[in-house]
Amino acid sequence: MSTTTPPASNLALAERFRSVRQRTLALAEPLTPEDMMVQSTAEASPVKWHLAHTAWFFESFVLREFQRGYRLFNPDFAWLFNSYYQTFASFPEKRLRSSFSRPGIEEVLRFRAHVDDAMERLLEGNPPPEALERIELGLHHEEQHQELVLTDVLNAFYVNPLRPVYRPAEAEPRLWKRPSEPAGPLRFLRFEGGVQEVGHAGEGFCFDNELPRHRVWLEPYALAERLVTCGEYLEFMEDGGYRRPDLWLSDGWNAVQDHGWSAPLYWSSESGEWSVFTLRGPQALALRKNAPVSHLSYYEADAYARWAGYRLPTEFEWEAAAEGRLIAGNLLDAGWLMPVPASEMREDAPGPSGEAVGLLPDNPAGPFKRPWQLFGDCWQWTASAYLGYPGFRPLPGSLGEYNGKFMSGQMVLRGGSCATPRPHIRASYRNFFPPDTRWQFSGIRLASR
Amino acid sequence: MSTTTPPASNLALAERFRSVRQRTLALAEPLTPEDMMVQSTAEASPVKWHLAHTAWFFESFVLREFQRGYRLFNPDFAWLFNSYYQTFASFPEKRLRSSFSRPGIEEVLRFRAHVDDAMERLLEGNPPPEALERIELGLHHEEQHQELVLTDVLNAFYVNPLRPVYRPAEAEPRLWKRPSEPAGPLRFLRFEGGVQEVGHAGEGFCFDNELPRHRVWLEPYALAERLVTCGEYLEFMEDGGYRRPDLWLSDGWNAVQDHGWSAPLYWSSESGEWSVFTLRGPQALALRKNAPVSHLSYYEADAYARWAGYRLPTEFEWEAAAEGRLIAGNLLDAGWLMPVPASEMREDAPGPSGEAVGLLPDNPAGPFKRPWQLFGDCWQWTASAYLGYPGFRPLPGSLGEYNGKFMSGQMVLRGGSCATPRPHIRASYRNFFPPDTRWQFSGIRLASR
Amino acid sequence: MSTTTPPASNLALAERFRSVRQRTLALAEPLTPEDMMVQSTAEASPVKWHLAHTAWFFESFVLREFQRGYRLFNPDFAWLFNSYYQTFASFPEKRLRSSFSRPGIEEVLRFRAHVDDAMERLLEGNPPPEALERIELGLHHEEQHQELVLTDVLNAFYVNPLRPVYRPAEAEPRLWKRPSEPAGPLRFLRFEGGVQEVGHAGEGFCFDNELPRHRVWLEPYALAERLVTCGEYLEFMEDGGYRRPDLWLSDGWNAVQDHGWSAPLYWSSESGEWSVFTLRGPQALALRKNAPVSHLSYYEADAYARWAGYRLPTEFEWEAAAEGRLIAGNLLDAGWLMPVPASEMREDAPGPSGEAVGLLPDNPAGPFKRPWQLFGDCWQWTASAYLGYPGFRPLPGSLGEYNGKFMSGQMVLRGGSCATPRPHIRASYRNFFPPDTRWQFSGIRLASR
Amino acid sequence: MSTTTPPASNLALAERFRSVRQRTLALAEPLTPEDMMVQSTAEASPVKWHLAHTAWFFESFVLREFQRGYRLFNPDFAWLFNSYYQTFASFPEKRLRSSFSRPGIEEVLRFRAHVDDAMERLLEGNPPPEALERIELGLHHEEQHQELVLTDVLNAFYVNPLRPVYRPAEAEPRLWKRPSEPAGPLRFLRFEGGVQEVGHAGEGFCFDNELPRHRVWLEPYALAERLVTCGEYLEFMEDGGYRRPDLWLSDGWNAVQDHGWSAPLYWSSESGEWSVFTLRGPQALALRKNAPVSHLSYYEADAYARWAGYRLPTEFEWEAAAEGRLIAGNLLDAGWLMPVPASEMREDAPGPSGEAVGLLPDNPAGPFKRPWQLFGDCWQWTASAYLGYPGFRPLPGSLGEYNGKFMSGQMVLRGGSCATPRPHIRASYRNFFPPDTRWQFSGIRLASR
Repeated sequence: MSTTTPPASNLALAERFRSVRQRTLALAEPLTPEDMMVQSTAEASPVKWHLAHTAWFFESFVLREFQRGYRLFNPDFAWLFNSYYQTFASFPEKRLRSSFSRPGIEEVLRFRAHVDDAMERLLEGNPPPEALERIELGLHHEEQHQELVLTDVLNAFYVNPLRPVYRPAEAEPRLWKRPSEPAGPLRFLRFEGGVQEVGHAGEGFCFDNELPRHRVWLEPYALAERLVTCGEYLEFMEDGGYRRPDLWLSDGWNAVQDHGWSAPLYWSSESGEWSVFTLRGPQALALRKNAPVSHLSYYEADAYARWAGYRLPTEFEWEAAAEGRLIAGNLLDAGWLMPVPASEMREDAPGPSGEAVGLLPDNPAGPFKRPWQLFGDCWQWTASAYLGYPGFRPLPGSLGEYNGKFMSGQMVLRGGSCATPRPHIRASYRNFFPPDTRWQFSGIRLASR
Repeated sequence: MSTTTPPASNLALAERFRSVRQRTLALAEPLTPEDMMVQSTAEASPVKWHLAHTAWFFESFVLREFQRGYRLFNPDFAWLFNSYYQTFASFPEKRLRSSFSRPGIEEVLRFRAHVDDAMERLLEGNPPPEALERIELGLHHEEQHQELVLTDVLNAFYVNPLRPVYRPAEAEPRLWKRPSEPAGPLRFLRFEGGVQEVGHAGEGFCFDNELPRHRVWLEPYALAERLVTCGEYLEFMEDGGYRRPDLWLSDGWNAVQDHGWSAPLYWSSESGEWSVFTLRGPQALALRKNAPVSHLSYYEADAYARWAGYRLPTEFEWEAAAEGRLIAGNLLDAGWLMPVPASEMREDAPGPSGEAVGLLPDNPAGPFKRPWQLFGDCWQWTASAYLGYPGFRPLPGSLGEYNGKFMSGQMVLRGGSCATPRPHIRASYRNFFPPDTRWQFSGIRLASR
Repeated sequence: MSTTTPPASNLALAERFRSVRQRTLALAEPLTPEDMMVQSTAEASPVKWHLAHTAWFFESFVLREFQRGYRLFNPDFAWLFNSYYQTFASFPEKRLRSSFSRPGIEEVLRFRAHVDDAMERLLEGNPPPEALERIELGLHHEEQHQELVLTDVLNAFYVNPLRPVYRPAEAEPRLWKRPSEPAGPLRFLRFEGGVQEVGHAGEGFCFDNELPRHRVWLEPYALAERLVTCGEYLEFMEDGGYRRPDLWLSDGWNAVQDHGWSAPLYWSSESGEWSVFTLRGPQALALRKNAPVSHLSYYEADAYARWAGYRLPTEFEWEAAAEGRLIAGNLLDAGWLMPVPASEMREDAPGPSGEAVGLLPDNPAGPFKRPWQLFGDCWQWTASAYLGYPGFRPLPGSLGEYNGKFMSGQMVLRGGSCATPRPHIRASYRNFFPPDTRWQFSGIRLASR
Repeated sequence: MSTTTPPASNLALAERFRSVRQRTLALAEPLTPEDMMVQSTAEASPVKWHLAHTAWFFESFVLREFQRGYRLFNPDFAWLFNSYYQTFASFPEKRLRSSFSRPGIEEVLRFRAHVDDAMERLLEGNPPPEALERIELGLHHEEQHQELVLTDVLNAFYVNPLRPVYRPAEAEPRLWKRPSEPAGPLRFLRFEGGVQEVGHAGEGFCFDNELPRHRVWLEPYALAERLVTCGEYLEFMEDGGYRRPDLWLSDGWNAVQDHGWSAPLYWSSESGEWSVFTLRGPQALALRKNAPVSHLSYYEADAYARWAGYRLPTEFEWEAAAEGRLIAGNLLDAGWLMPVPASEMREDAPGPSGEAVGLLPDNPAGPFKRPWQLFGDCWQWTASAYLGYPGFRPLPGSLGEYNGKFMSGQMVLRGGSCATPRPHIRASYRNFFPPDTRWQFSGIRLASR
């Protein structure tokens, strides 16, 4: 969390508080109390747990410290809804969350209301800057769980043999072109490289793992203008992609064997026709061939890139591009899924002489510029392991466990998906998951020399 | 299922049908829809699943075959709520049952009502004898699930860190004596042995695994007049019972190490005070010292018996005793947890000369004769593996999978527990579970030469 | 161990001691020191370990107690080569045995010589009866390990991708008929049933688990005159035996799925031609169609019997037949793998009137009467769980762990295989293994009503 | 492998070939054929397998392609001793290597001699440059396995309950000071940072994963002048280091719980006295307090650094330091295990003005400059995940599987240990292992801002 930035005015913060908290409830609106009990994979949590845990966060890290005379809603909740903060309190094993039939959803909603009331009173007072920073953190925390509500419900409804629909009009990764059009050849944008600054800059909120802003050296590189589509991924599958060990990292090949992967998560095939299970229910793949392929592990993204003759970008290549800096030339035409010819990529190639264009509008969190599919469709696996930046300092106290202790064994994803709340999207945001993770909206952007 | 017995009159059967079906609903009455979603151990199922599966049984094995024009409530339910009948339909993996938020409880109750309506119409007609036999089987099936509802809820509420109460007055294993009284020395009743008939006899219903009635040879033996109490079991624990490999079967010792067992399931200790979690909530062990110890694995029952200098009875020793036959003498006094002196047990010993008494009143399913604790407190692990009787024939068709395919790796328990429906208790009933099972109301009756 | 029987004269015992000990070494003769290191499955042990452990047994249970002034060869060996006697000493995890490169084979042979020398001196003295009984036990113990040497080497050489040959003329289950002849219809022998005595009787040695001899009640039954052949088992496979859940116990079907079983252990198929790996190397199944099928789990034996319309015998049916008692009639002709017609099996059927014949020659350990294949070809899975006989008493002290603590989760096999030493074969012998065990020479004898 | 460098003259290469091949045999000299069978952990291989696999490498990648008329020693060996080259041939599961009693050690030595003869003939001819490059690669490959021979034997002898000695004078990590001296306060050397070149440069051999040499940006940093000692690590243990979750990465804390770690691998404690098992046998920790702590996982190294108030260096910080470049000042005195005072570490601090000194003599592979303990004592875990350098290209063909496919889930170690062959040590060398790996000689160098 940036500590150099003055928090938003209390009034605006109170407004944002109400809005974020309300949106969480709105996400649960199509769900029954029973739906909110399901924990269909070890990675997911029941929606009811998400509702309670996000209230717990404000109670534990804001109200207990900054609201004089705050009465805990239920002292047992202090550990019952703790996720993983070892230095704060004990907590139940994650897999037990599906057994929390009590407290019931009504009681959890009362817990939320109790917290909300206290928070309103706190905000009406003149809370100290630390409190405001904690509130801001809590809201971003809640937005992370809003995304998890969607990904966890998708998994729960997929595991349910009846395959129910969450909402008929729920957001999905957007099509690159209309279903009837060919996706067209993949084009790349070149970047010059050199010393770049990465990490969060400026006024707004960020997590501790986005800091400090620091310099990195980038060699010249090129990024694909769009995400890999379902149609392109199907070609990989049809070319034996899941049966050729030479395309895979060793761990990835083991995962393919152990789990029997032969398609992205949520794809299924009947009589040769593929369909994809979504929050809107099952959809024919034929109508989504121009949509970005999603719900892939890092291993699959990496194997696809190798098959296609490209590679995944590093997180800093992605971030520098997303900040729209240092563009050497305009779009390069590249053959359809063929490696960019070396002649065109050589540093001394004449290259396209077009003027520099940015990939983004000025405000990265604003309405998205469609063509690049940088933000708001799929998280994009990068070739970077999730590690601390030089000089990384975790938040003080128990909140130091928020991000830092997970800096091992995970890969960085960038960009944000269709399930990610808008205020949560920015160029410096670092999402991270183990490389075999598939239940997120995770896709592929290719890179090249 | 006995095929030689005329079914109860249709009217009486319809009455019993309503009563059994109603009792299942009554068991669910204290539960919320969320409670009915929990599957807290691999052995258990969600209560909602029990509600649906017992309706599925009537739909699949009665209505589909015997009710002309019966309309399936929902064709998907035919496999969704199939438990394990491989030859009937596919079925979901058991562990997925906790993800069935849909159908919701309302829909499951409509499913039950739909089935009940059709069953009423069937019973009003003149269904053939096979149908009546299937209905009878379905009712006993439902009673088995009634017991499971209680054992599964107990586990679910125990796993829930808040430890809720199911019902303040739910049945429990009855005390042998008042809490303030000493349990008193353990006394045994001797039986003469010889050729005995075992297996179901007479008019009533039985499962296929209780047939055919056949002869066995029994050596003379003695059975304890009551179950081992919690207080006695505590002495075993305090004597290092869980730390002495010489007391255990090899598999049992491995289970102790692997699971870290050091007390019966549901016992916990705080500051040296033991309490037991029950359907009524936590209870001080101090008040239950004269209650039968329960929720033990076979391994623990066997180790306790070895420690105490006795053994577990075979299922046929138990059954012959429960039928009240061939008693050689009256109660023997035996030292407190000391092996019965050999001199007293020799066949030619003068022995107690008292008249023979039966262990049971005439009607084994009737109100229980308290002293013997044979029925209705705890299932009693026997030293008999669960195998088919000589000439065993499974039911025809898919129902042949009901009992027969489980005749491997399990031990027989006899007697019935406080959770067992009364019509379900009889001397020939064979319950069976793997030897590491602890979530049932399972206790210990000692035997001796 | 029978305690009522005077031990063989010391001289004869000394002679037998030398002969048994020498035979163990002879079994290791074709093996290199490296071969004797291999532990290719969790069930097996390295041959070097067998050589050391059998010496350890005499050192630990005979010499330490009965040879005054005996000097331990190496105090570390007391626990290093302890197999599982918890009350004797600690012992290493079984899986570590393959890491015991030290002591080397030379040192293990010196250990054996050291023990042999001390045993000779002990036998020259006048050891007390307990010592003689322990020595007899130790020799039978060593014979058990002689069998394991063969089964473990077979597994080790099968797992070795080079598939080496142990000995070109090693014993195998004998053909029922010449390869070119049809096996012929399966015939059964009927037994009358009634009260039978089972368990060891007479003068010779037996293990504690064969005692006490006691009475059982047997219903009339019939036993097949020979074992099921490889050719017959192939028909089961070709009829989809491994793909039909209705043929299997529930645990058995799970084992088929989990392990991917589709044929007996050691069978493999190339271009449609089956071959069987043996101690003589790979052999074409075509030449072994009339040999008994072997290396089956209990689950496979049970499924085959169900498919064929028969069942497995109980251990007491087998034992009574092997003792040649109570035969009601001579061979019944039965259709080829068809259930015996009920008319022929009814008690009141006229039946064959031939005189009673025994299944065995007088000396069960002598040269076998070929037709019955009762002894010396394959262990025969029975339908009996391995449990203690009524009044079972384990040996006193640590030797009580020899058999008793394994009386859980295992099934009894009877008869002895081609790998079993002759003195080790008798009608009352109870072998036992978990039902998924396949690395022993285990086959099928069918039974019927 | 550098492709721009002319290979050593054939004569010198032949000489080096003989020397490297001979050294492998010398390492096996203290071992019996049985020792060479042991595979005591999933990470290790039997020594005999190492002997065979290193011959297989020359046969498969040199002789088959470049020696006209080469006769395979045994066609089965082509897959039997393949380690993991999926595109070359099938290979046995790694865990089966301990079952390869055949071929015996004599045959494996004949295999080596057969390969050596053919290699001599090839080298006498005029092999093409690709062949020479492959031979050079094969020799470095063999040196990697020489190191594994030592680490695998250490583990095998540790698992053996008899704890044998490999060689009484085998190399070990060197003491920093004499046992009787205090280790002294930890001192740091500062580096200026900026754009640095990393990756292999110059004439000599390197692996593909050390290329291409490229630029990185480093912030100013400081490296400890020596490795963390056993004595210092003991303080961490005594301060509850293994019981405080706040010190650990989340995955690391899980590993501590799952494996029950409470000390480095090979440490054991009896009556409060620690000893360390080494290739020389057990040694009292009291005499090795000034030796570098070794056999730690990445998680332990990371937790220690956090406890001590420092961090681990990145691989590029390490490499730049090891190349002796860009040193801002001479040794800083720092308090004993206290963080370097911020005032001293600020960029604008006056700082020590001493002249720049290199950490290394000119020849990084030559005799080591003792003080820095950079090379030849313990591999040093870095904070860098093992990933490809920008523009990384795996070797062509099957050899592309050598390094590239492992670029996932592993951390980089730098420096080389006492078990590493000298020609194998260089500043750009990247060793890599999963973060829970402990069987290598892996220790800790601290870094700071």
